[in-house]
Amino acid sequence: MVNDQRESGRRQVFSAIRKAGRVARVDLARETGISPATVTAITAELLREGLIEETGTPDRSDLRRGRPRVDLKVRGAAHVVAGMKLSHLAIATALIDFEGTMIAEHTCALDKSRHSAAELTALVERALDETLSKAGLSRDQLSGVGLGMSGVVDAMGGLVHWSPSVAERNVPLRDMLGARIDLPIFIDNDANLVAMAEQYFGHGRGVSDFIVVTIESGVGMGIVINNEVYRGARGCGAEFGHTKVQLDGALCRCGQRGCLEAYVADYALLREAATTTDFADITTSSAKLQALVEAARGGDTTAQMIFDRAGRMFAMGLANVVNIFDPQLIILSGERMQFDYLYADQVLDSIRRSIIQIDLPPPQIVIHKWGDLMWAKGAAAFAIDGVADIALQNFSGNAA
Amino acid sequence: MVNDQRESGRRQVFSAIRKAGRVARVDLARETGISPATVTAITAELLREGLIEETGTPDRSDLRRGRPRVDLKVRGAAHVVAGMKLSHLAIATALIDFEGTMIAEHTCALDKSRHSAAELTALVERALDETLSKAGLSRDQLSGVGLGMSGVVDAMGGLVHWSPSVAERNVPLRDMLGARIDLPIFIDNDANLVAMAEQYFGHGRGVSDFIVVTIESGVGMGIVINNEVYRGARGCGAEFGHTKVQLDGALCRCGQRGCLEAYVADYALLREAATTTDFADITTSSAKLQALVEAARGGDTTAQMIFDRAGRMFAMGLANVVNIFDPQLIILSGERMQFDYLYADQVLDSIRRSIIQIDLPPPQIVIHKWGDLMWAKGAAAFAIDGVADIALQNFSGNAA
Repeated sequence: MVNDQRESGRRQVFSAIRKAGRVARVDLARETGISPATVTAITAELLREGLIEETGTPDRSDLRRGRPRVDLKVRGAAHVVAGMKLSHLAIATALIDFEGTMIAEHTCALDKSRHSAAELTALVERALDETLSKAGLSRDQLSGVGLGMSGVVDAMGGLVHWSPSVAERNVPLRDMLGARIDLPIFIDNDANLVAMAEQYFGHGRGVSDFIVVTIESGVGMGIVINNEVYRGARGCGAEFGHTKVQLDGALCRCGQRGCLEAYVADYALLREAATTTDFADITTSSAKLQALVEAARGGDTTAQMIFDRAGRMFAMGLANVVNIFDPQLIILSGERMQFDYLYADQVLDSIRRSIIQIDLPPPQIVIHKWGDLMWAKGAAAFAIDGVADIALQNFSGNAA
Repeated sequence: MVNDQRESGRRQVFSAIRKAGRVARVDLARETGISPATVTAITAELLREGLIEETGTPDRSDLRRGRPRVDLKVRGAAHVVAGMKLSHLAIATALIDFEGTMIAEHTCALDKSRHSAAELTALVERALDETLSKAGLSRDQLSGVGLGMSGVVDAMGGLVHWSPSVAERNVPLRDMLGARIDLPIFIDNDANLVAMAEQYFGHGRGVSDFIVVTIESGVGMGIVINNEVYRGARGCGAEFGHTKVQLDGALCRCGQRGCLEAYVADYALLREAATTTDFADITTSSAKLQALVEAARGGDTTAQMIFDRAGRMFAMGLANVVNIFDPQLIILSGERMQFDYLYADQVLDSIRRSIIQIDLPPPQIVIHKWGDLMWAKGAAAFAIDGVADIALQNFSGNAA
């Protein structure tokens, strides 16, 4: 029981150091509510185990008082982890150290977007090995692998309930990968991992409650409440893309009607466009969408109408999330330029008009464009979480 | 700092005792993660201050081992609080002791549904005094007053941003009531208070994450995450009634279009019904609605169509909340029989069909009908929280 409490204190302190970047012991005590004496004892253990290190800060106000201030930070060299993002037609991999510094990055193209779990396991292993060889590292220098993908993923159970990338349902992907790769594996929904990347490395640093909306071929959401990613009772919360924006509305790929994705995803825009436009000479969806974007920019009123409705549906769905959560901050995060229409000023205005009107400023909305490698960085942040948990547990075992 | 930590430990222990009802010291340590020695020290203080008391349990398995098990519980006699619910045309008041036992209850009719803040303050004072006199108590025997109302209420700031019951906006109602009544006052949105009543006295006992949807003349929502009522960054989260279910849809009393309430609230149903039905000889909204319910039951297809769409819109809105939160439990809570159509089997089926389909059971949905006095009990639970906080702070002060 007492050891449990000590381990939980250790987790709290280590997590506070990670989230802060660099922090003084006295601020850790304030942040965690743990007494300064206990913080000192815990940080001594963490230093001894090599998980954190001391670092001086050139803070003049402290120097003037004659005491150079010593901060604590995570020791980058303690561990290396891999973060991997499985997307439509690629696997992006990032190797990062324990402090979050990028060591190597690599992207493998895939020849199709949907694979059997067995094929996928082999592809992930290959992508990992290619990245390691690029960095001149071997597998036994890695401490863990984080993998993100779209779909409904039970992170705690290591189970993929369903994903557009996986042919089967309810796949125990964590164990399948673990059996091949022989390292601790951590899997999660990709939007949750973007939320984690924002929390540790991005706009979410120091913000206790925020929402990340990710826009790729689908629409995802990650929710951070009280500094933790919120997953829901069954591990499948934050399913923003399949909230309904129209009763008996457009058919969605998930088989239901009226989902937000059925109005704003690539396929939904192209489905509408096909009614009046002949894309016969364009083969890829991506090129078709680009043509539609250019048509709208060039003044084609049908193309404009398609994007206009999608933008308004997106604003309505997002305003609903704001009315329910009332977050401090919303981060709209995506990599692809064709989604610019969802970031348009009139869309943001429409969100602000559709939320409950009180005499306080509405939540801040930030647009953050990044590529697959930033998603991979989120997967790595998740792996760092898991590897830290294992490390903190193990030396709790040593101490007992 | 150390005192802060002790105070926070005290809060955790007291709150765990309240939520459990009766609990052994050893279970408190497990529940809170605080060491058994500290739990023993804290419970000794709480006993000395008279906030909790010991109670034997006739647990035969313990008796057999020769050690009669001693549980702890909140001491009912420690404090009496008032819980008040301001509704459409009444103020319901409940006096309850610190353990949650009802001492007296009273309902005052109001002659209109909307008052100036000054009028309202006087009416609340009158309702409180009438209830006290009914119970043979005086104001100085009370330790605090909790008040719930619909609208956007900032519980932390004691501010009513807006409410259908209050003529002005941004009213500092807590301070206005405090100036007249001279007791600690706690105000909150009524749906949050129902969530608290369910948490302490109802279906939410022992459930860490759940949602309460309240159906009266409007639709409210209270969210409990990780055993705490979730309020959002600006204190106005969980605004379920004004989530949008239709782009550019029906006009809502809030001035926006397509809100859920604009499809399911009394006024919305009657607005539709007035298109084909002449209610000339019926004067009150409640009687008109009753007539509409009876028409639907009697086979009137227009009346049935009105309720049918409202039910489907309600299911859609609620399924969206489930997709975002993935709660363990949803409690549908209301007092009025005319809302039966929202609890109909086909509505519940429609919710289940509209949520993300994974191979795990959907969240449990419980229907809990209760009256204004149960809402008042929620307000009292909130007041107990506040009074306990004050008591725990004060004896922290004594100890320092």
